[in-house]
Amino acid sequence: MELRLCIVGFGNVGTGFAKILLDKGYNVMGRGIRITAIVDPVKGSVINQRGVDLAKALRLVAETGRLEGYGEGYVDEVDTLEVIKQDLHDVVIELTPTNIETGEPGYSHVKTALETGKHVITTNKGPVALHLYELLSLAGEKDLYLGFEGTVMSGTPLIKTLLYGMDRGLVKKVEGVLNGTTNYILTRMEEGLTYREALEEARLKGYAEADPSMDIDGHDLAAKASILASLIEGRQVTPRMIRRTSLRTYLEEAGYRDGTKYVLSVEPGDYRVEPREYPEGHPLRMLRGVENGVIIETEYLGRIFLSGPGAGREETGYAVLTDLIDLIRRL
Amino acid sequence: MELRLCIVGFGNVGTGFAKILLDKGYNVMGRGIRITAIVDPVKGSVINQRGVDLAKALRLVAETGRLEGYGEGYVDEVDTLEVIKQDLHDVVIELTPTNIETGEPGYSHVKTALETGKHVITTNKGPVALHLYELLSLAGEKDLYLGFEGTVMSGTPLIKTLLYGMDRGLVKKVEGVLNGTTNYILTRMEEGLTYREALEEARLKGYAEADPSMDIDGHDLAAKASILASLIEGRQVTPRMIRRTSLRTYLEEAGYRDGTKYVLSVEPGDYRVEPREYPEGHPLRMLRGVENGVIIETEYLGRIFLSGPGAGREETGYAVLTDLIDLIRRL
Repeated sequence: MELRLCIVGFGNVGTGFAKILLDKGYNVMGRGIRITAIVDPVKGSVINQRGVDLAKALRLVAETGRLEGYGEGYVDEVDTLEVIKQDLHDVVIELTPTNIETGEPGYSHVKTALETGKHVITTNKGPVALHLYELLSLAGEKDLYLGFEGTVMSGTPLIKTLLYGMDRGLVKKVEGVLNGTTNYILTRMEEGLTYREALEEARLKGYAEADPSMDIDGHDLAAKASILASLIEGRQVTPRMIRRTSLRTYLEEAGYRDGTKYVLSVEPGDYRVEPREYPEGHPLRMLRGVENGVIIETEYLGRIFLSGPGAGREETGYAVLTDLIDLIRRL
Repeated sequence: MELRLCIVGFGNVGTGFAKILLDKGYNVMGRGIRITAIVDPVKGSVINQRGVDLAKALRLVAETGRLEGYGEGYVDEVDTLEVIKQDLHDVVIELTPTNIETGEPGYSHVKTALETGKHVITTNKGPVALHLYELLSLAGEKDLYLGFEGTVMSGTPLIKTLLYGMDRGLVKKVEGVLNGTTNYILTRMEEGLTYREALEEARLKGYAEADPSMDIDGHDLAAKASILASLIEGRQVTPRMIRRTSLRTYLEEAGYRDGTKYVLSVEPGDYRVEPREYPEGHPLRMLRGVENGVIIETEYLGRIFLSGPGAGREETGYAVLTDLIDLIRRL
C-alpha cells in the first residue's frame, strides 16, 4: 500500500525533498509514496488525497514563488493543524522554519501529528531542541516513528550514528564544527579578510541571514548542542542549558587568531558553544567553508571523525529521505 | 527475560567483547545478558546454561591461555556445530578467524545458527564476503537478526552508516584506507623507512602476521571491498570479483612515492583494491598509522568522510556491542 505523506513547509528543504521524491518516481525501498497534502502559509496549500503532482508544484514554485494556479485541491489559506489531523496521511513531514525560543509552529505540528496517529519526520531544530523526550515518549506510546536526522548536519548521518552506531551510555564527548555560516566567515578570515568583509561575503552568498545573530551569537549551535546532549544524556537538555559564548563578542574582544573555529562541545554534564583554537593538522581545523565535521569520543572505540555537508536544499532533503527509509524498514 | 549468548571464538575479539560485557554488568539497554557457552577449539569450551562467569574466564585465559580449570561446564573438546544447535542460546556471536577462500568455519557456524533459530552477530569477514545475501535471506525468512559491523573498520559504524544512514541506491562511490597494517607501513615509509624496515617494525608491533600476504597483497582489502560492494549493489559481490593490485608488487615495480595509500574503491560495476597517490590535504592522505578512513559519495548529499579505528581487541568488541544494541532494539 502506498505511504501517504503530508509535507508541512514547502521552502528550501520541502522543495529539495520533493525533487528527490520525483527523481525516485515516488518510490522508496519499493514502497509507493503519495503526497496527500503540501501545506505552506506563504506559498499556499494543495490537498488532494489522490496525490499531489510534485512536478507541477515544483514548477509553479520555481516560476511564481507560490502554489496558486495548481488547480484541483489548491487552497489559499488553511488551518495547518486541521490538515495535519485529517486521516489523509500516514506521515507528516514537518519542515517549517526553526524558532528556538518557542519551538513553534513546529512543536504543535509534530505533537498534533503524533497525537492523531501519524509518523513524523522533521528537520526543524526547535521542537527537537526543546521537547525531544516528550515527543519521543508520545511516539513510543503510540508506536510511531519520529525522525530528526536533518536537525543537525543535514543528511550527513550524525544522528543515526549516535542512535544506531553507538552505545550512547559510553559516549564521552562530541565536539564539532556544525555551523556552516560561521565556519565560512572564519575560513575567509584565515585567508585575510576582516570580520566585516567575511560576513558581508557570507551574506552575498546566501549563507548568512540579514540578521546573522542565530549563527554568529551561537543560538543555532546551542540548539544543535542541546539535541546532541539530549541524545548522549538520555534526557532533555535545552538550549538554555548550554554555556554559550558569542563568536561576535569573542572576535571583538580577543581578535582573530589562525586556527580559531566556532564549535559545540558536549560531554556528560558539560555543554558548551564557544570559539576554540586548534593546532595545524587537527581534523576540525581542516574543515573549510560551509563544511561540517564532528569528533565523537567513545569508551572502548576511541575517537571517530565524521564530516560532510551541514546544510543545503537537497542535502537536507536527503536527510528526510533517509528517515523515510528508516521508517519504511520498520513498518 | 535475559538474552542468552553463545560466544564462538574466544581470541582477541571474544575476550575484548567479554571485557565490555563484564564492565557493563551483563546489562545492555536494560536487558540482562547471560553467556550460556564459550566455544574455542584451542582454549577449550565452557557450556553452562546458568551463565558463564566472564571474570573467571578472562582471568584464566590471561594467565594460562586456556579455559581449562574453569570448573563446572568445562569441556576440552566439543563439536561446535552441535553446541550452536542447542536450545541454550538466543544469539550466536561468531568471532572465529577469517578464511577468505572457503569462509569456514564461520560460514557453517552462522548458517547453522540461523537455521536453528538463533540471531547472529559476526566479525568474521569470510562468511559475509562470500555469502552475505544467502545469509541475509535465511535470516529474513526466519525473522532473525544478522549483524556484521565488525567485519569492516571494527566498531567505527561504517556498515550501519551504509545500512541505515544512506539510500544505498544513491551511493556513487566508497573509497577508503581500510587496512591498518599497510597504512602503518606506508606511513613509516613516508617517514623515511624502507619497505623491509617498515614491514619488520609492523611485525614487531603485532600489526603484521608472520605471513603478511593477507594485508600487503590486498586479500583483506578485497574481502572488505566485496562486503561494501555487496551493500551498495544490493547483491552478492565476492572477493574474486575485485580487481586487486598487490601493494608488494607495486612497490617493487613502481617504488614508493609520497602520498601513496593502499585503498579499496567501490563504484557500481567497478571494484578495486590498489595503491593510489593522493595530494597533500586529501583526507585519505591524512590518515596516519593504523587509522582507517573512508569517503562515501552519494547523490544529493555529496561527499562524507568517516574515520576511526579499523582494528583492535576492544574496538572490535565494541562493534559486537553495537550490533547487540541494534538487535535488542528490534526485539
